[in-house]
Amino acid sequence: MIFASDNWAGAHPTIAENLARHAAGFAASYGLNDLDRAVERTFCDLFEREVAVFFVSTGTAANALSMTALSRPGGVFFAHRDAHMVVDECGAVEYLSGGGRLAPIDGPLGRITPETLQAEIDRYPAAFVHAGRPAAVSITQATEIGTVYGGGDIAAIAETAQKNGLPLHMDGARFANALVSLGLTPAEMTWKRGVDIVSFGGTKNGCWCAEAVVFMNPEGARDFPFIRKRAAQLFSKSRFVAAQFEAYFRDGLWLETARHANAMAARLAGHVEASPYARLGWRPQANEVFPLVRRDVAKKLEAAGAVFKLWHVMPAEIAGDAREDEVLLRLVTSFATTPDAVDRFGALLA
Amino acid sequence: MIFASDNWAGAHPTIAENLARHAAGFAASYGLNDLDRAVERTFCDLFEREVAVFFVSTGTAANALSMTALSRPGGVFFAHRDAHMVVDECGAVEYLSGGGRLAPIDGPLGRITPETLQAEIDRYPAAFVHAGRPAAVSITQATEIGTVYGGGDIAAIAETAQKNGLPLHMDGARFANALVSLGLTPAEMTWKRGVDIVSFGGTKNGCWCAEAVVFMNPEGARDFPFIRKRAAQLFSKSRFVAAQFEAYFRDGLWLETARHANAMAARLAGHVEASPYARLGWRPQANEVFPLVRRDVAKKLEAAGAVFKLWHVMPAEIAGDAREDEVLLRLVTSFATTPDAVDRFGALLA
Amino acid sequence: MIFASDNWAGAHPTIAENLARHAAGFAASYGLNDLDRAVERTFCDLFEREVAVFFVSTGTAANALSMTALSRPGGVFFAHRDAHMVVDECGAVEYLSGGGRLAPIDGPLGRITPETLQAEIDRYPAAFVHAGRPAAVSITQATEIGTVYGGGDIAAIAETAQKNGLPLHMDGARFANALVSLGLTPAEMTWKRGVDIVSFGGTKNGCWCAEAVVFMNPEGARDFPFIRKRAAQLFSKSRFVAAQFEAYFRDGLWLETARHANAMAARLAGHVEASPYARLGWRPQANEVFPLVRRDVAKKLEAAGAVFKLWHVMPAEIAGDAREDEVLLRLVTSFATTPDAVDRFGALLA
Amino acid sequence: MIFASDNWAGAHPTIAENLARHAAGFAASYGLNDLDRAVERTFCDLFEREVAVFFVSTGTAANALSMTALSRPGGVFFAHRDAHMVVDECGAVEYLSGGGRLAPIDGPLGRITPETLQAEIDRYPAAFVHAGRPAAVSITQATEIGTVYGGGDIAAIAETAQKNGLPLHMDGARFANALVSLGLTPAEMTWKRGVDIVSFGGTKNGCWCAEAVVFMNPEGARDFPFIRKRAAQLFSKSRFVAAQFEAYFRDGLWLETARHANAMAARLAGHVEASPYARLGWRPQANEVFPLVRRDVAKKLEAAGAVFKLWHVMPAEIAGDAREDEVLLRLVTSFATTPDAVDRFGALLA
Repeated sequence: MIFASDNWAGAHPTIAENLARHAAGFAASYGLNDLDRAVERTFCDLFEREVAVFFVSTGTAANALSMTALSRPGGVFFAHRDAHMVVDECGAVEYLSGGGRLAPIDGPLGRITPETLQAEIDRYPAAFVHAGRPAAVSITQATEIGTVYGGGDIAAIAETAQKNGLPLHMDGARFANALVSLGLTPAEMTWKRGVDIVSFGGTKNGCWCAEAVVFMNPEGARDFPFIRKRAAQLFSKSRFVAAQFEAYFRDGLWLETARHANAMAARLAGHVEASPYARLGWRPQANEVFPLVRRDVAKKLEAAGAVFKLWHVMPAEIAGDAREDEVLLRLVTSFATTPDAVDRFGALLA
Repeated sequence: MIFASDNWAGAHPTIAENLARHAAGFAASYGLNDLDRAVERTFCDLFEREVAVFFVSTGTAANALSMTALSRPGGVFFAHRDAHMVVDECGAVEYLSGGGRLAPIDGPLGRITPETLQAEIDRYPAAFVHAGRPAAVSITQATEIGTVYGGGDIAAIAETAQKNGLPLHMDGARFANALVSLGLTPAEMTWKRGVDIVSFGGTKNGCWCAEAVVFMNPEGARDFPFIRKRAAQLFSKSRFVAAQFEAYFRDGLWLETARHANAMAARLAGHVEASPYARLGWRPQANEVFPLVRRDVAKKLEAAGAVFKLWHVMPAEIAGDAREDEVLLRLVTSFATTPDAVDRFGALLA
Repeated sequence: MIFASDNWAGAHPTIAENLARHAAGFAASYGLNDLDRAVERTFCDLFEREVAVFFVSTGTAANALSMTALSRPGGVFFAHRDAHMVVDECGAVEYLSGGGRLAPIDGPLGRITPETLQAEIDRYPAAFVHAGRPAAVSITQATEIGTVYGGGDIAAIAETAQKNGLPLHMDGARFANALVSLGLTPAEMTWKRGVDIVSFGGTKNGCWCAEAVVFMNPEGARDFPFIRKRAAQLFSKSRFVAAQFEAYFRDGLWLETARHANAMAARLAGHVEASPYARLGWRPQANEVFPLVRRDVAKKLEAAGAVFKLWHVMPAEIAGDAREDEVLLRLVTSFATTPDAVDRFGALLA
Repeated sequence: MIFASDNWAGAHPTIAENLARHAAGFAASYGLNDLDRAVERTFCDLFEREVAVFFVSTGTAANALSMTALSRPGGVFFAHRDAHMVVDECGAVEYLSGGGRLAPIDGPLGRITPETLQAEIDRYPAAFVHAGRPAAVSITQATEIGTVYGGGDIAAIAETAQKNGLPLHMDGARFANALVSLGLTPAEMTWKRGVDIVSFGGTKNGCWCAEAVVFMNPEGARDFPFIRKRAAQLFSKSRFVAAQFEAYFRDGLWLETARHANAMAARLAGHVEASPYARLGWRPQANEVFPLVRRDVAKKLEAAGAVFKLWHVMPAEIAGDAREDEVLLRLVTSFATTPDAVDRFGALLA
């Protein structure tokens, strides 16, 4: 009953096998080989356009180097108050971007809105050098609390960003989970709605270590080879990432693993709703479930072997509704979560 | 006949298998699991003392974050003019250390000497704020041109560093190759000779991606968890590195692969010496061989399928001796180099 | 009727004369001369202890380099949401500290409280590398909105900072105005209440350009000569700053100019209170007055030649109380403000 | 007999008076006032084109922020091995540019040549991400050792820079001294020969503190207001710099002070040539004289009250010629140097 995080899983067997298969033989290093090139083509096919793809080592690297690519002197990046780059990356964006600032934005259930975004942007009047100036907007898809921006939400935020002359970044550490939740194509969830650059994550969805920065417009990526290398993020045996992505995309494996994870989350949510001891903080839209339970119930679940996280922040939307002895749990599912584990957890709740 | 670089190989089968074996099951992320802990213990055993070990994604990261850990305002890092961090890391040291400077030092056959080091340090008089001030010394073992610092060389440089109050770093991207070349233990090649911090590389010697920063004194590593995370170098599924190192160290595999690579280099060198068309630039001490050949010979070797690098700099030591139509080749061997490939290359030279 | 800012004034005649007087003759550059040394001694006398003093070019430099001196990897600086370093320095703290983060803190009337400070610090749990970690606390004295921390307030915040192992910085761009408002000595307003480092401003209070970073404990300043020089903040003809400070401190000129500015603010406040067209947002404690007036009244005042700033944020404390057609004005006084100008403004309000 | 440095002088009386004259009255801060604007127009007139002018606090700031403006990821700046930014700025360029690298270039008597420049640029092959890439070239006019680039020299270096797609910066800490030495106009010494950006220094030539970054093409300066403010280099009472420049340029004062300084240097050189105890290291072209004297002679000069610097490096050009007991002195003259002091020094040498 491991629901601690989707990064507690290892690698999907198909991906592990493909990696092992590529262990033999020689290939040019630093990405200049056939396998890397082929995987880059696959990205173009998936996004239905020429994109520029750069493997990096972590989601934090993908985010921080995306922001670095979009930065400018005195630049400010706008992201939700709970975004990974705001609360979970130890200042990597600020550090790697050479001192850029993250402006945290409010918004219900983990999502910024055109209104909360514009209000924050307005704090930086044009040509007022003292305040600094906006540089980019970032949204997280799926969000840190398992909700998802709809296609219309993304388009509306992109419109606000464009109106202010700002590029739009998507932190897609859980890109696949959001994609299958919405039933959109990669193109529909990104550049067709105005997204300019994506942190494309494979690690949480079945890879060992497969993250990429994807520029929807390769023109914008001209400096990025240097940005990546200078940040010590250019793998020498880069094909070990390519081999993972090759298997990840083949026969739609990535969509299958994401659908499985989301289905397991829905199944968990069903158990929560059926339970007299728990209730949903909000409806899950991807692979994370947040039940409210009494503190003593949480302790009993842990004692019975369930592994999860006590969520550190009670979102404003439910805080008023929560009782004083209640805590918020975060349960995360992945390709490796079994129905059996979910149902055993359900049985504990019943 | 691939002698382009030791990072053109994939992964050693034993390492690939171990990685696949660990794909199943759950484990705490960010290094907080049994496998990571066990591998850290193995490092302590190998170095015969408590050391602090941090996995990172690339050798460049290991070098640049080591320098960052040793940096201070106005700080200058001393390394050989041909060191990887000087010529092959796109300014990662300067960037990640927040603007530190690399002072290139001369020295015969890729090695700095106590004298050339002291001469450069002397350019930074104490308490003269304008010049900046020394922060650390770095040596590369084995060097970029396949030579090795002897135990006495290391001790002498460490003495010079200590006399100037400077910590000593070892770029060990080819640590194992140097180790078996010298017949020393890890302890003897590092802290017993005054080395404080090591970039410990496994990638070139049979891993996919296994690099670590190793502090000989864990006290010095107190800030390093933040230095690493802030630089986007903390893997979530960190055990994919641990799994590689587990197999790497088991039953001395790493020494075996290094010995094999060095033996293949020696065999290559033998062919060069026997050839009427080539001669050694200098005697190889690890897994790199640098023959001087006529330009047309180099072309013929390439046409016959040999892959190698034309070395960009003719070291001063041999420049006077080289004829105008001669070029310097770099041939690198690895765990994956076969005697057959070496002998076929030898046959071309004969 | 110039109430735009205290930096719209020039230099006090006594200071200007002293600067002119020192124009002749030679003196060692970079601060290594008798005048600089003498002024440093004066600082020690004023603070009643050995302090380390470093002239810099701007208040922003003093703040950002103070934070740089206190920084550490992954470090977070805590300051009021309206602090100059948060809203008016174009990201200088983030940039010069190598990517540190500013965490904005709430608090009534421009002042943080031990409670709001502790609540924000608590978001960075010890040994949780993902969040980063606290590095320093900064308070602004007087605040951006003309209020002042009392001696007890400072002591209480210092206690909270110390409990969390954090040094305390004071942004003293208006140090003198707060000092005479409270009737404390420099020692009593700083280290005797737990302040560790001060941005000591002379520019707003009668100098052309005289700012200093003052370390209450010289031990903490060992790296600062390099921090300052590396940031391009070491003046060659440093005595042009020393000459200003010499006159500034002689015969208590600095206290006299601050008392004058504060008195002019009080006189302005009296006019506001007596006016049927204006009321005080809050009681001024230093040299800034914030009246609420109807938008059309503000326009008329400007048309009549009054120069002031429309304040960009309506503090929460008075927002509920303000009518929709009201705006908040900021009126700043200085050594150069005349009673006549104040009374002419008062007449407009009557 | 103070020949220690041109920054040991104070301010020229005319400049000091003008500064005092502007002390009274109010003016908009941060450069948005009539005086600042008028001085900016004067710069345009002097350079015979629209230029963008930004005051900063030090020559180091002017240099480092110029490089920052020209930087790009992985960027390398090329400057003479003895350039101020290489040896005397504590790594400010590297720090403020976010980790750029300075590549030191050789060249006779303090000047780089098209050949030595091209040779260094060639070490960074296009599209080879590992090495980094060239970003800008900087020349110092007059150089650190009192020599001057002729108009043809500048044009030739500019041609090499342009051929490589690189902008050309001029460190003009002693701009005026070089200008009057060559008999060129500011336009002829800069953009008419291909210079793109200038660190324009007034401090060494009679001001207290007056340095500016001047963009020959204002288009290139669009980010610079943020670059300057973020670096804490935007003065609030900016007109204290403007007032100095106003007097500096009026009636050609700056050319007069430079001519005087150069004449004093020539007079010093005459004494050296006439002396049996000293000889010129090389012919002075601006306001610095470098005599070779025996060590005991240097001691006697100091004992007699002469103040100068023992030059730290013996240039290769004269090293072979110098006797073992000889040292190289640096004598610097300025607007404040008197013929009497020069002749007293001459008498000591006779």
